[in-house]
Amino acid sequence: MAVNLPVMDVLEEVPGIRAGTADARIRDNGRDDITVFAFEPGAIVGGVYTRNSYRAAPVEIASACPGPARGFVVNSGNANAATGERGANDARQTCSHLASLLECNATEVLPFSTGVIGEFLPMEKILTGIDRAYEALSPKHWAHAAAAIMTTDTAPKGLSNRFKLGGCEAIGTGIVKGSGMIRPDMATLLAFVGTNASLTPEIARRLTLDLAELSFNRLTVDGDTSTNDSFVVVASGVGDHETIRNASSIEYSELLHGLTPIVRELAMRTVRDAEGATRFITIHVQGGCDAAECMRVAYTVAHSPLVKTALFAGDPNWGRFCMAIGRAGIEDLDPYGVSLNLNDVRVAVGGMVADSYREEVGAEVMARDEYEITIDLGRGSSRETIWTSDLSYEYVRINAEYRS
Amino acid sequence: MAVNLPVMDVLEEVPGIRAGTADARIRDNGRDDITVFAFEPGAIVGGVYTRNSYRAAPVEIASACPGPARGFVVNSGNANAATGERGANDARQTCSHLASLLECNATEVLPFSTGVIGEFLPMEKILTGIDRAYEALSPKHWAHAAAAIMTTDTAPKGLSNRFKLGGCEAIGTGIVKGSGMIRPDMATLLAFVGTNASLTPEIARRLTLDLAELSFNRLTVDGDTSTNDSFVVVASGVGDHETIRNASSIEYSELLHGLTPIVRELAMRTVRDAEGATRFITIHVQGGCDAAECMRVAYTVAHSPLVKTALFAGDPNWGRFCMAIGRAGIEDLDPYGVSLNLNDVRVAVGGMVADSYREEVGAEVMARDEYEITIDLGRGSSRETIWTSDLSYEYVRINAEYRS
Repeated sequence: MAVNLPVMDVLEEVPGIRAGTADARIRDNGRDDITVFAFEPGAIVGGVYTRNSYRAAPVEIASACPGPARGFVVNSGNANAATGERGANDARQTCSHLASLLECNATEVLPFSTGVIGEFLPMEKILTGIDRAYEALSPKHWAHAAAAIMTTDTAPKGLSNRFKLGGCEAIGTGIVKGSGMIRPDMATLLAFVGTNASLTPEIARRLTLDLAELSFNRLTVDGDTSTNDSFVVVASGVGDHETIRNASSIEYSELLHGLTPIVRELAMRTVRDAEGATRFITIHVQGGCDAAECMRVAYTVAHSPLVKTALFAGDPNWGRFCMAIGRAGIEDLDPYGVSLNLNDVRVAVGGMVADSYREEVGAEVMARDEYEITIDLGRGSSRETIWTSDLSYEYVRINAEYRS
Repeated sequence: MAVNLPVMDVLEEVPGIRAGTADARIRDNGRDDITVFAFEPGAIVGGVYTRNSYRAAPVEIASACPGPARGFVVNSGNANAATGERGANDARQTCSHLASLLECNATEVLPFSTGVIGEFLPMEKILTGIDRAYEALSPKHWAHAAAAIMTTDTAPKGLSNRFKLGGCEAIGTGIVKGSGMIRPDMATLLAFVGTNASLTPEIARRLTLDLAELSFNRLTVDGDTSTNDSFVVVASGVGDHETIRNASSIEYSELLHGLTPIVRELAMRTVRDAEGATRFITIHVQGGCDAAECMRVAYTVAHSPLVKTALFAGDPNWGRFCMAIGRAGIEDLDPYGVSLNLNDVRVAVGGMVADSYREEVGAEVMARDEYEITIDLGRGSSRETIWTSDLSYEYVRINAEYRS
């Protein structure tokens, strides 16, 4: 089940970045489950990581990387989370194993894991898998990587974009696996973006934060945040691009704009491929005093089980939207200043049903598999947008039945 | 569907309090849907009301009551919420109608509504219903009231308790309708407790807050908070009891202890009767620095869709509990200081699976229809308890299919 998820386009090569995959039989499901990335010397990495207190061992190690990196080692099927000191040692060993093949320092390799929480990594299988994935390294293998990082995703998700950077052309390619935050025991969102721009470590960090703010920080499936969520950008610096050292430069702006379509589309595809999703919903909250209160209302609406079941049913039961807006904890919110649209249908105004509203028109919008909900708080000029999915029988089935 | 919901015992009369019900055909489901309560002069009311910004019209009026009251008028089937000035006028009219029958001021009658949001009250039906419910007034009709306030509850819920108060015997009787916060478009929790104690308005307010803290503030079904949630205590003062004027008096303590079993049991029955519930779960969070962080962890666990689907499935997937504890936003939480029990089975200790733990033992506990989850944060001495239910197919079905 997925809502209008596009088939993955051809993923373009990024100079200075190679990927290789192998089937290490971690879950023994006949799919590749080990991915290694290798970067030319000079590559710089920036990352944004989960804020869950139970950060997985690989997240602790990856997030400590100061910038320069030579490779990633990624496994699916096992999250290496809630595994204590043994888990940390295992993650370090995967790094040093790849580092010996790449002839670099172990601290220049970042580990990533996604899968079941609370089990130890099967180290023998993983080290053999790394050897074989290393042998498969090629600039052409982004699509293999997009498939090998999947857990319960229904299809691989990736995207490339060419853009102008300081007078030359640059390239960005990104891949993601979800399925939303829906499955933290398959813990969970991993996104990798490569570009041949050249960055300082500080700019790489800033870029990752800016991109996350425009993409992965705007999606929610069920409000659960995984132990392994990681979004990293690697800039290979291979090409004629000058190193970007300043976030207020034109080049930084060009790079941000060049990569934004990739990460926004990857984020939206993650929601489209959220397990059990039958709707893809865009929620706009406008008329707020500031961004924070717009996001708070948007997330409260998006997380409300009653809103989500109404979305699933296609039931224009707008009282549920009011209930969720009302419990978002916005101080001094005047409910009679709030209005609500479904696409361009005005449903409620002044906190009450609009005179012009006819339920069959609302029902027609909510019968679609994607549409927009616009909430106007009527008290300011801030506006924010997030994406979410519905709460279906399939969500319950998947999350009740899954674990093997 | 309900989890071990006891059949309602006989509800005892409370001197000075009468109830009457009638079928006003608001939803036309063949059940009484109007309840009036009448109190002897001198009765004092205290209440705790929803904090949702979209408070229904009747909640606005009831919550403004300074203490002395002569009656309540309650309708089910229509919440009179998101109905603007017309809704406020309608609610005031129901009050003045009952007031004219009781020969008191309209401000001495409190209105309560529960049902669909966003529709106007059918005033003609309601006023006729009030007349007929008034004619039926009797001290014996608490059980009728418990049934007439129901919406989608599977059974009426009520309880009485006799207790010692200042050397005499006092009586408390309470009723509640849910079904949890599960159905805010049937908006939602109403609880009424009557006692023949004698209170000042200030003590009535304090008592309601203290009782709510021990009962209704400790239950959650889905985290959604309705527009109409109301819990009120009416103290008739009929009998030989001296008026309680001081919350540090022995009599206040006796009264609090006498009514606590009623409200705790009503709160628990609300969760047992939550729609779609197949499990009744008690969550203890101990070892916290303060009550607030214990409650925060407890609610984050109770609201997590992934925890709730695991509860439904009876799957001892303890990584989900860790995930939820980790995303509760507790500053400086050391995940390796946390331990987890299912009843008396130690599952995790030091943030990892316990050496002694066997999954089949955890599965045996989680196969039961009620059990306790104990989370020890390992950093303090605070302890708090809440009750919740699971997330089942039936929850989705009810909330996706319902509205008529």
